[in-house]
Amino acid sequence: MSENKMAKAITICEVCLRDGLQNEKTILTTEEKIDLVNKMSDAGFKVIEVGSFMSPKAVPQMANTDDVFKAMNKKPGVQYRALIANERGVDRAIACGCEKVKLNVSASVAHNIANLNMTPAESVAGFGACVEKAKAAGIGISGSISMAFGSPWDKEISIDTVKSIVEAYLKVGVDEISLSDASGMAYPTQVMEMCPEMAKAYPEVTWWLHFHNTRGLGVANIFAGIMSGFTRFDSSFAGVGGCPFVPGAAGNVATEDVLHMCDESHIETGIDLDKAIAISRQVVQYIHHPTDSYILRAGKAKDLILEVPKKRVKHEEKK
Amino acid sequence: MSENKMAKAITICEVCLRDGLQNEKTILTTEEKIDLVNKMSDAGFKVIEVGSFMSPKAVPQMANTDDVFKAMNKKPGVQYRALIANERGVDRAIACGCEKVKLNVSASVAHNIANLNMTPAESVAGFGACVEKAKAAGIGISGSISMAFGSPWDKEISIDTVKSIVEAYLKVGVDEISLSDASGMAYPTQVMEMCPEMAKAYPEVTWWLHFHNTRGLGVANIFAGIMSGFTRFDSSFAGVGGCPFVPGAAGNVATEDVLHMCDESHIETGIDLDKAIAISRQVVQYIHHPTDSYILRAGKAKDLILEVPKKRVKHEEKK
Repeated sequence: MSENKMAKAITICEVCLRDGLQNEKTILTTEEKIDLVNKMSDAGFKVIEVGSFMSPKAVPQMANTDDVFKAMNKKPGVQYRALIANERGVDRAIACGCEKVKLNVSASVAHNIANLNMTPAESVAGFGACVEKAKAAGIGISGSISMAFGSPWDKEISIDTVKSIVEAYLKVGVDEISLSDASGMAYPTQVMEMCPEMAKAYPEVTWWLHFHNTRGLGVANIFAGIMSGFTRFDSSFAGVGGCPFVPGAAGNVATEDVLHMCDESHIETGIDLDKAIAISRQVVQYIHHPTDSYILRAGKAKDLILEVPKKRVKHEEKK
Repeated sequence: MSENKMAKAITICEVCLRDGLQNEKTILTTEEKIDLVNKMSDAGFKVIEVGSFMSPKAVPQMANTDDVFKAMNKKPGVQYRALIANERGVDRAIACGCEKVKLNVSASVAHNIANLNMTPAESVAGFGACVEKAKAAGIGISGSISMAFGSPWDKEISIDTVKSIVEAYLKVGVDEISLSDASGMAYPTQVMEMCPEMAKAYPEVTWWLHFHNTRGLGVANIFAGIMSGFTRFDSSFAGVGGCPFVPGAAGNVATEDVLHMCDESHIETGIDLDKAIAISRQVVQYIHHPTDSYILRAGKAKDLILEVPKKRVKHEEKK
């Protein structure tokens, strides 16, 4: 096994406020979001995706992102991010004091050409002005590649396609890149093949992995990523989120499930698991429906210390 | 990574009819079970746990196991097993034509002493007569160690404790052993530590792994097992089953979720995934409640070939 490569510590980016809530019917108030984000920094989260600067018409759940940035506590050492789509997003980031933004492009060539009449790499090339404006304002900027592990419109997304997008990002000056599986098609052996190849080809890149649990492989993919030496992963409280192409499917990997695995495995996250579980319960109260969190249902393995039964039972008949 | 150790093919033991259904309120009829087991062998399952020979009072869901064995098709090359607790179980196996039985002991020393006034290894030593009777009748016999990765009554189950039980099994003539995590406490790095150590210490043993998805780690644990060179895993259609200590918690790992991961990863199982999904849907109809299967909710990744949208949408505003 890859003992050497395996990370002793990982960083979680909590994406519930953005990728999670953008798929929810309930829109959280500015006050509710501020309460959550402040509790997150208190619990030890070091990277938090607070929202996005999209059109309020297209994504009404994120319309109050600017207000949240203005009023939340900004804990030193914590990175608060927002997703943007264009220069307008950078303007909004500057105006509300957001110091880190993230661009996104889909790795589906077919879809990108159908929608925008250009390849994903050409789309990224068009981000140049955005990157310049952000950097000029002292705002950090990263890039995401969704469908990096598979797409509903393509038989396969080749590693070469993903590489061409990475190179386009590097060319416009973005060297922090997230490989995202929003469609929930990644599988562990693929992660273990892709990650080392990308890391070797682009050693200058700071990598993130973003998995959804659509087909039950989210945590296994994160484990595969950790074993491949990757150390930065997105997750969402209670698994809130969704697969935009499969109604009713599971969403993001649940933050508390990932933290629990790390706690058991002695992989440092710097996050207080009990505090994270409490925040997760609060999120579930806000959205008014059960989610796919295992730890919220079962509790931590360490909690489960039962008293040894005093009454002698017919042990042979039970398993 | 452990490319060399990683198995190219694995064997699944379908345990829904036993470990799954013994936790369900609905009791399946003999005809329903026969229909399922016949469909399983048709789908390519090579090892099927059909039921158990326990007291019908203690486990009424399994009371018709004998009748199922008598009337089901026995496909050549398929191993049909049943769980037993004592010699009475061997007698019933002989009477109904069951050719493979499995014993079980818990690795919790505290629990075993409280219940039976002996250690787990001493319990296994007491299985000697059972094993002799089975072997004399030409019936194969295997052993399971539940709580091998953790127990609700102990702070930790040490590898040495598990080893002492393995040695007790070997001493009474059982060399096919399942390491079971019915309490859902195993985690991937633990699996990757334990499996190679056990395989090295007891090369003569035929190993099985049995994981529950109580804390969302079932599939990751199976992947860790595969990477450790283990090739035999239990799973249950639709994830039917339960954690006896945590009401409402998820049950076994869903067979179709494991098969889907294997299909994507080009790990051979010999099982037709579509047929397995159909059986799984039938099981869910029988038990009248939703389960924790991801593939039943989301479908296979390969199914998800959408038409590229013809209408141009505002791509920038969506992720």
